[in-house]
Amino acid sequence: MMFAGDEYMLLNKIENPNDIKKIAREDYAELAQEIRQFLIEKVSVTGGHLGSNLGAVELTMALHLALNLPEDKIIWDVGHQSYTHKLLTGRKDGFDALRQFGGMSGFPKRKESQYDAFDTGHSSTSISAGLGLVKARDIRGEKNTIVSVIGDGSLTGGMAYEAMNNAAKLETNFIIILNDNNMSISENVGGVSKYLNNIRTANSYLDLKEGIYNALRGTKGGDNIVNRIRRAKSSVKQLVIPGMLFEDMGLTYLGPVDGHDIDSLIRVIQEAKRVKGAVMVHVLTQKGRGYAPAERHPARFHGADPFDIETGIPSHPRTVANYTDIFSTVMCKLGQRDERIVAITAAMPDGTGLKRFRNMYPERFFDVGIAEEHAVTFAAGLAAGGLKPVVAVYSSFLQRAYDQILHDVCIQNLPVIFAVDRAGLVGSDGETHQGIFDFSYLSCIPNMNICAPKNKWELSDMMKFAVKLEKPVAIRYPRGTAYAGLKEYRAPIEYGRAEWIYTESEIALFAVGGMVKTAENVRKCLKEKGYHVSLINARFVKPIDEDAVIAACKNHGLIVTMEENVATGGYGERVLRCMNENRLSNEYLNISLPDAYVEHGNVEVLKKEVGIDEDSIVRRICERLGRKGTV
Amino acid sequence: MMFAGDEYMLLNKIENPNDIKKIAREDYAELAQEIRQFLIEKVSVTGGHLGSNLGAVELTMALHLALNLPEDKIIWDVGHQSYTHKLLTGRKDGFDALRQFGGMSGFPKRKESQYDAFDTGHSSTSISAGLGLVKARDIRGEKNTIVSVIGDGSLTGGMAYEAMNNAAKLETNFIIILNDNNMSISENVGGVSKYLNNIRTANSYLDLKEGIYNALRGTKGGDNIVNRIRRAKSSVKQLVIPGMLFEDMGLTYLGPVDGHDIDSLIRVIQEAKRVKGAVMVHVLTQKGRGYAPAERHPARFHGADPFDIETGIPSHPRTVANYTDIFSTVMCKLGQRDERIVAITAAMPDGTGLKRFRNMYPERFFDVGIAEEHAVTFAAGLAAGGLKPVVAVYSSFLQRAYDQILHDVCIQNLPVIFAVDRAGLVGSDGETHQGIFDFSYLSCIPNMNICAPKNKWELSDMMKFAVKLEKPVAIRYPRGTAYAGLKEYRAPIEYGRAEWIYTESEIALFAVGGMVKTAENVRKCLKEKGYHVSLINARFVKPIDEDAVIAACKNHGLIVTMEENVATGGYGERVLRCMNENRLSNEYLNISLPDAYVEHGNVEVLKKEVGIDEDSIVRRICERLGRKGTV
Repeated sequence: MMFAGDEYMLLNKIENPNDIKKIAREDYAELAQEIRQFLIEKVSVTGGHLGSNLGAVELTMALHLALNLPEDKIIWDVGHQSYTHKLLTGRKDGFDALRQFGGMSGFPKRKESQYDAFDTGHSSTSISAGLGLVKARDIRGEKNTIVSVIGDGSLTGGMAYEAMNNAAKLETNFIIILNDNNMSISENVGGVSKYLNNIRTANSYLDLKEGIYNALRGTKGGDNIVNRIRRAKSSVKQLVIPGMLFEDMGLTYLGPVDGHDIDSLIRVIQEAKRVKGAVMVHVLTQKGRGYAPAERHPARFHGADPFDIETGIPSHPRTVANYTDIFSTVMCKLGQRDERIVAITAAMPDGTGLKRFRNMYPERFFDVGIAEEHAVTFAAGLAAGGLKPVVAVYSSFLQRAYDQILHDVCIQNLPVIFAVDRAGLVGSDGETHQGIFDFSYLSCIPNMNICAPKNKWELSDMMKFAVKLEKPVAIRYPRGTAYAGLKEYRAPIEYGRAEWIYTESEIALFAVGGMVKTAENVRKCLKEKGYHVSLINARFVKPIDEDAVIAACKNHGLIVTMEENVATGGYGERVLRCMNENRLSNEYLNISLPDAYVEHGNVEVLKKEVGIDEDSIVRRICERLGRKGTV
Repeated sequence: MMFAGDEYMLLNKIENPNDIKKIAREDYAELAQEIRQFLIEKVSVTGGHLGSNLGAVELTMALHLALNLPEDKIIWDVGHQSYTHKLLTGRKDGFDALRQFGGMSGFPKRKESQYDAFDTGHSSTSISAGLGLVKARDIRGEKNTIVSVIGDGSLTGGMAYEAMNNAAKLETNFIIILNDNNMSISENVGGVSKYLNNIRTANSYLDLKEGIYNALRGTKGGDNIVNRIRRAKSSVKQLVIPGMLFEDMGLTYLGPVDGHDIDSLIRVIQEAKRVKGAVMVHVLTQKGRGYAPAERHPARFHGADPFDIETGIPSHPRTVANYTDIFSTVMCKLGQRDERIVAITAAMPDGTGLKRFRNMYPERFFDVGIAEEHAVTFAAGLAAGGLKPVVAVYSSFLQRAYDQILHDVCIQNLPVIFAVDRAGLVGSDGETHQGIFDFSYLSCIPNMNICAPKNKWELSDMMKFAVKLEKPVAIRYPRGTAYAGLKEYRAPIEYGRAEWIYTESEIALFAVGGMVKTAENVRKCLKEKGYHVSLINARFVKPIDEDAVIAACKNHGLIVTMEENVATGGYGERVLRCMNENRLSNEYLNISLPDAYVEHGNVEVLKKEVGIDEDSIVRRICERLGRKGTV
């Protein structure tokens, strides 16, 4: 079933925030249906997060109906489920350029709308941020309502627990909506997830409760005991309320509520507003709701590329391998060769490519849930126990385990391998997801080793090298198609050694990882202009190959470093320091990212914007040469 | 009561690991007494962690009696409570040089002993690490016992929860000892703490349980219900077991047990070893047990300087203000001037100096427990709500909130002030606590601003400046006495501007924070040798004062940067890049810390070791000049 634009009868009435309140109650279900259709239609063209948004349609509507925005505030955990919120706050037209450069973000952004109360992107932050807004409200003597909406997946992140532990002390209202779809990006894991599942299926338990009540009522003193139970603030309250885990932590628990029943949702939100303290409203939703392919394949439709609405099949199916595929394959091979190899993911068996390893070696695969801190220290424990753990993680999420790398892995120099995926510019997810800081935050950690492959074969070679290294090592590779050029350059990986691809003179290009491909093209342009250009594949960002730098300085007037990382703390600064320490005064040019967050957009567009595309680099090199004349 | 060394009748029999097993059961209490006396005596001389160690004496003895080390493994969360463990594993003689350079660490160290299973130092890591060792054991087909010992304070850290959530899935044995002394470093906070307290005082609840059982037994079907409750894996089990919060998460709960009753402890550990899965043993202990001053002032005796045993009073009372004192005072003043100022600590109101602010403005003070991630994002929420939060935190603990700084504070450019205490070398706590990475890991974050005061007045000025800045800013200052020199140099703080203290020629010393004092002395030495030396107080590490660098390069042959941070990613690399970008080819010398963890020891000794003491710096400058002749 398809709508033309003018068939969005109800949705078209919602031009401005709070317009939803003009919609008649009996039309809510129809509006929900239109919103779903709109989201499917738009996301099928632009790509974006679909499953989580389809699951949160009624919940978002109910929040907009029960609250008074923008005085009241909603903080969307992770934020990729905020599309309906954007729709209901006057941003319908933004969906045509969703996640495109200059267009609307796929996440809440305060700079985009005053209805976005707090920027999110990574998981498990919403309760902390919401509690901050609550305390600010109370101190300023205001009376608005603050709501944090957190998924059950995000609840596996320890920060959410830290925040609940603190929210327990509150004596003013704070609503936490647990949007429980029984899924992380992939299936959910762990004790708390199982607990939530028990609540879902608690019929037998409710029967038991009735049985106890009835039994007690008939006995001497029984009524008294029932009353004591009902009044009890203690753990015995478990008999009356299913969410005792949260009650034990000091939160009031309401639910579970059907997350697709708008009337019930409004009612429970109104009830929650009356609680003096932190209240958790447990809402049961279905990821992908209302779109059969997304209901069937929630992981695939978590973050979707453009797809055909009828079939759900990607419009432009991928035909070439990306780095994640290469990693996936090499992990399976390594797993076969060495039984000590184990793999860890924080809720991303699909995204990181570990699914095949999981299927082949289930007992050596660990999905720890959205819990990067635990993932890394758990890996440290595995390594201390004699195994060879590989932590596969996106660059921007590894930031969440910084102290665990520094304190738990590297002080003990434990052989943990970090497969750092989605490093560099990632594109449409934008600011929160760009993996452009890892060289900087990892390089300053003693005992850490960092490398980056130039092409698909080198990723494989580096993995094999890393397994033998017996030290902490991060292998960093970008999102997207794995470079298949320079196949003939495959000198064995040597510790701390760069690879000379072309050895000429005048200009030496030291390129890191994905920038080797760019450097290859930059070199061609420079050659056409008559320059002699060497190309060195850095391979190691830590330790850098000082000998290669020294050697290059002998017969190259200009040294250029190229990396897809911020300049500050990156590879280039290290090369420059090496030159200085060796008192080499060659001209030096640093090609890297500026000191700024990079918004969403197509990666190629972003590269031009920040000046690390081929044309910009060639221009900058020529400028540098021009200022001094030729080298 | 004092013992001479030869009066340690029982302790002297313990020369080697497992020697404790030769001690007669009836002598355990006496041995515990001797251990306490030994620890008090030694720590009164060297300083060190006392309260936590006195609380864990019987627990440690019981573990050593019930386990078979080193095959079995104990992971000590934080690790500062491991002194008895060190005593019982042949390291008695190490206590004379406890926490001194070259001497025994105050924390578990695998390189120190094979009986130390995993290095710790920061909080909440032990369950993750233990679970790693458990999985490694199972995969390798071994059968040993793994025990993580975690305090109730550490349990407020989210990582512990992430680990428990994962441990819930275990089908093999893993023992988690909850060493519950009802204290963090200061008083404990939050819902879980309150919950644990309820278990402590659960007599009335146990009565209620009996009441229900008796009532049910007398009724038709009642026995059946009682049996169903007993068998129940569901939440109804709450009636039978106090630790339902943990049972709900999927752990088996045993306890609470008196943590000073060795027989009970041994019994419960033996019982725990039989559980197929993760089992939490709840042990109630008293911090500072057996030493009256420590029982009365647990926070003061958490980490103690040398003290008089009779009175508990420090042997060398502090007579001059340290930076924490200055911060403490200025916070109270700022709090008075501006009601929007709020203060946040992660379990360290004493250590960070926020206690006075708490006493003056309790409603604007937040102790979030050991929960750095929450602390920072909570601060971001407070700032988004219009307040001016100050997060006071030690440099090495701020590492734990890295993504929260990058993702929650800086993307939104929120005005959160980080008061980064214990930055640079901290001394006797060693590797895990040195604050020598913050310039690096903070500088690469866009929108972050970083400054460091040269002396006590400048810390005050910088705080006032930061409050007006309306941007994220980290002010970084060292442990120990606040420098009171250079009082006459107090030019107003200007954004991104360095302060010229002495303007001469030849050599320009750019010194950061605590290194300004060092530079002042270095300059004197160089002056004596006949050099002309400018001294520039960097003030800002981000943004650096490029104009000052450019100006200095005009008439100084040698530019020197001095910082108490690792070279990689630090201030010096930024200055060198600035010089390069401006094509300034002056000689440049980087004085900073090497790419290595720095062990424990007196700060002055450590500075010599790593070459940032005055003599080393003067020597290096002269060498640099010598190589090139005079400048």
